[in-house]
Amino acid sequence: MTSDQLFEQIKRKRSFLCVGLDTDLSKIPPHLLSTDDPIFEFNKAIVDATADLAVAFKPNLAFYEVHGAAGWISLQKTVRYIRENHKDLFIIADAKRGDITSTAKMYAKTFFNSLDCDSITISPYMGKDSVSPFLEYKNKWVIILALTSNESFSDFQMIENKNGKRLFEEVIKKTMQWGNVDNTMFVVGATRAELFQDIRKVAPNHFLLVPGVGEQGGSLQDVAKYGMNSKCGLLVNSSRGIIYADKTEKFAEAARNKAYQLQQEMQHILEKSGLI
Amino acid sequence: MTSDQLFEQIKRKRSFLCVGLDTDLSKIPPHLLSTDDPIFEFNKAIVDATADLAVAFKPNLAFYEVHGAAGWISLQKTVRYIRENHKDLFIIADAKRGDITSTAKMYAKTFFNSLDCDSITISPYMGKDSVSPFLEYKNKWVIILALTSNESFSDFQMIENKNGKRLFEEVIKKTMQWGNVDNTMFVVGATRAELFQDIRKVAPNHFLLVPGVGEQGGSLQDVAKYGMNSKCGLLVNSSRGIIYADKTEKFAEAARNKAYQLQQEMQHILEKSGLI
Repeated sequence: MTSDQLFEQIKRKRSFLCVGLDTDLSKIPPHLLSTDDPIFEFNKAIVDATADLAVAFKPNLAFYEVHGAAGWISLQKTVRYIRENHKDLFIIADAKRGDITSTAKMYAKTFFNSLDCDSITISPYMGKDSVSPFLEYKNKWVIILALTSNESFSDFQMIENKNGKRLFEEVIKKTMQWGNVDNTMFVVGATRAELFQDIRKVAPNHFLLVPGVGEQGGSLQDVAKYGMNSKCGLLVNSSRGIIYADKTEKFAEAARNKAYQLQQEMQHILEKSGLI
Repeated sequence: MTSDQLFEQIKRKRSFLCVGLDTDLSKIPPHLLSTDDPIFEFNKAIVDATADLAVAFKPNLAFYEVHGAAGWISLQKTVRYIRENHKDLFIIADAKRGDITSTAKMYAKTFFNSLDCDSITISPYMGKDSVSPFLEYKNKWVIILALTSNESFSDFQMIENKNGKRLFEEVIKKTMQWGNVDNTMFVVGATRAELFQDIRKVAPNHFLLVPGVGEQGGSLQDVAKYGMNSKCGLLVNSSRGIIYADKTEKFAEAARNKAYQLQQEMQHILEKSGLI
């Protein structure tokens, strides 16, 4: 998928929502626990209930790996289900990998070939040769951690170099040279809305994946105000706020309602910005 | 395992060798491919052939994940096999994870509870709350990426802040406050031998996990010269150099020979340093 195709989908669905599949057995409706594969059953219902309101889905690898082999099967089934039933969706493996070239090649094969995700989140700490192997795949994306949504983001990301540039700016400036707007995005937390302006100075045209709206306290309005560009340029993620809206048999309907609220807010923002 | 217990094992085995299990189906002896679980069969033979010469084993997650659920089963079996048959060995999950607290908790549960590894490698980019959940486990370790062995390590790790401190130094200085010498190590590439002195100024007492000897060109002598402390303080890893020494039915014997060469060199270093 190119950035233009992603923008087309955003305009068509009037939404730039990404739904995070942080599927936790202790939080899903109890009636699903007696099924053969509760995680897949839950994901399937959530995907079907929200696919027309979202442009992307983001399974978080930790929640699958914790169940070992069974978790990988749930993940594979989830990705395949999305691919087969909702062809236009953008799938993000939230894996935050980053390793030397020979290892990075294996991860790229795993997430792009075996699992057929569209993209993977990557930690930039090890530099170019830990990212390049992912960029060799056509129509696949890396999503580089730049400014994260967690409280301790500033421990290292805000360290200023001798020229007054902060590490997250250096990360964006450097990594954007390795790829292009059709294969590279950046993670920027919604809780850092005031810094979106600085990021747009460095990377005006790249898509940003924005976690931290909802449970983590970020504001969609602020993110859009400071982060949106002429092709939207935003994928705003909500995980827990959508998928755990309800624990009864009506969980999928409740998730849809939460996703619908966000989609409506996004539609309003897109209209106000003249993008649709 | 405490750092003292690790040092005791180093003295007993006269070795500070870590064997990396980057087990790749395209590189293991072809006669194993017809077995039910070639990766496990290979690992089992390598572990049995080298366990008395090494203090640690380090499966690299990418090489297991690439096979999906089957790969996780090979990994589980490998870890269990080491635990049951070679009780004193230190097991490192080379996973390079790093995510927000709720996700980090899941990874900690995966690698410390479900898999029962002793330690996991962690990327520090997201700061304290991405590391802390791992430190809540007793007798388990985090191994923080500081100065890596790959060519592009300098893209970010060498960036100097306003006080002339490089990022890898800031990472070590800050992360060592979150834990202690009994639950925190640092990854420092053997290819950076000249920088071990700077690292020892910041972290004189911590264990360092040192990849990059062998295939990647690092020198064991230099690593020991600049990086060893009064309790050894080093785990030097070799992966490909040991495990792929031979592709015939004698692969385990060949791996043992390679590991033996390194152990002999390490014994000489330990004797010369007066540690044994």
